[in-house]
Amino acid sequence: MSLGEFDLIQKFFTRSVKRAALGVGDDCALFATSPGMQLAVSSDMLVEGRHFLSTVAPERLGHKALAVNLSDLAACGAKPVAFTLALALPRADERFLEGFSRGLLALADLHDCELIGGDTTQGPLNICIAVFGEVPVGNALLRSGAKPGDDLYVSGTLGDARLALEVFRGAVALEGTSFDAVRSAMETPQPRVALGMALRGIATSAIDVSDGLLGDLAHVLRRSGVGATLEIDAMPRSTVMAAQTVAWQRECTLAGGDDYELIFSAPPALAEPVRAAAREAQTGVTRIGRIEAQAGLRLIDRDGLAVENRFGSFDHFRS
Amino acid sequence: MSLGEFDLIQKFFTRSVKRAALGVGDDCALFATSPGMQLAVSSDMLVEGRHFLSTVAPERLGHKALAVNLSDLAACGAKPVAFTLALALPRADERFLEGFSRGLLALADLHDCELIGGDTTQGPLNICIAVFGEVPVGNALLRSGAKPGDDLYVSGTLGDARLALEVFRGAVALEGTSFDAVRSAMETPQPRVALGMALRGIATSAIDVSDGLLGDLAHVLRRSGVGATLEIDAMPRSTVMAAQTVAWQRECTLAGGDDYELIFSAPPALAEPVRAAAREAQTGVTRIGRIEAQAGLRLIDRDGLAVENRFGSFDHFRS
Repeated sequence: MSLGEFDLIQKFFTRSVKRAALGVGDDCALFATSPGMQLAVSSDMLVEGRHFLSTVAPERLGHKALAVNLSDLAACGAKPVAFTLALALPRADERFLEGFSRGLLALADLHDCELIGGDTTQGPLNICIAVFGEVPVGNALLRSGAKPGDDLYVSGTLGDARLALEVFRGAVALEGTSFDAVRSAMETPQPRVALGMALRGIATSAIDVSDGLLGDLAHVLRRSGVGATLEIDAMPRSTVMAAQTVAWQRECTLAGGDDYELIFSAPPALAEPVRAAAREAQTGVTRIGRIEAQAGLRLIDRDGLAVENRFGSFDHFRS
Repeated sequence: MSLGEFDLIQKFFTRSVKRAALGVGDDCALFATSPGMQLAVSSDMLVEGRHFLSTVAPERLGHKALAVNLSDLAACGAKPVAFTLALALPRADERFLEGFSRGLLALADLHDCELIGGDTTQGPLNICIAVFGEVPVGNALLRSGAKPGDDLYVSGTLGDARLALEVFRGAVALEGTSFDAVRSAMETPQPRVALGMALRGIATSAIDVSDGLLGDLAHVLRRSGVGATLEIDAMPRSTVMAAQTVAWQRECTLAGGDDYELIFSAPPALAEPVRAAAREAQTGVTRIGRIEAQAGLRLIDRDGLAVENRFGSFDHFRS
């Protein structure tokens, strides 16, 4: 079945407009930020084979496409407001669009984030979302604020998405509920929006883990002009991850990518507010190291011994 | 030569930040709208073979990618503020990126529109831009405001981009400066930003011509709940277009697509303010018909005789 471009937008993506003064269907969407708030904007593009596998269910793909963008808002401590969707599809596939829009809009509803504009075209599958959030002026969590002495934390668990990828690649064997669990981590990540908002005024820096913990942490260190020591065996991991070899555990948790957890720093004096924010957001948080004045990233194992950093960061042009 | 993702962003797209509180390089870009202003947001995706040919120079492609988005702001009467760029490239091609970023940023500078966020990835060439503009609350030009009795206008000239496409397709023969002129119309359209802003409070509706005059006008008529009569031989055309057969002239001006001119409506009583707006914006404007209460679009020729509407609109899934 083939539908024209306008019919497609109409059928699956037009909803009643709430927040926006004007929703899908005009040249632009119009909306105003609340008084005293800044707009936080991020845009991410998802390409088959790079950001998702052809085996993913359309509903999960819709979820993930928005989730990775909401994760950027979370890393800034911003509250989601709205998003635009640009979609290239090889053909106007109604079954795909039904599932995709269902997964996408379910996550959007969960975060009260409104679809305010769209563009569909024929081409190799490509999903591009721009997401808009609000954060009080001067209150955004940035990559540049980490201070020597700060504790380093990460939310949730790390590495399951990478473990699932290794199962698809045939490098790791997992079955049944174990595979289902890590596959869900890869295909339906949960953006840490509530945690990011709860950490406003507490965290000195934050970033979300999309390319792997070490690579993303390196951005924070560079932009903050600091270094860090990381306790590599302190990484939070799922029960499935904890059952893997230590080598796989380290590889997946440190350089896995696609985690969409938050790495953040906070002064030791704010350890209790950090725990309170985690409780409020119903999100686990683990201390994984410390920010230091000395540049560079030092890795230590459970015995405090130095470990060589031979973990690669994920680069969408290199790997 | 191969550069990593972060190096690429750094090298070609990082500039000193002006308006935005935070530019390229954090999880989100942050900015605030001015008091009393609404944000106008649009997002367009460009795919090779659909929106541009493989023969286009990277610099012109960079121009066009932003131009089509600025054209959406123009159609709302919004002043450009900022944009994000998501780019999928088959490989990290420095020569391409140098030209692309030069064309893109030159047009951005011309409209004082700041690049505030980026995402690059490996994949089939795909360019996705989200653009942000400002318009005083309640002052945006919408598709829904056309009233019976309004005059219908279009800016600039129509059809040259389509004529250039037909040359590439081999259906039309053009050479030398004639071909250069229509090729420039196709590859480096000039978004009518100044005209859109000048028409605030004057035009009752507006849309930009991306899919062809008849198709885009149909959106205005449907959303405004009106009809129109169009004088099909009154379409403004370049000297190159005027030298073509009447059949090609009609096809290209009415259903060409890729024009990025503005169609707008205004009451006859505001004909002089329309002309003043056109002068202020240094953009030609031509009256091409009239809005009517009777639904549907009626075409008449230079003698006032009805012409059958057998012109197809461009649909990115159908053509």
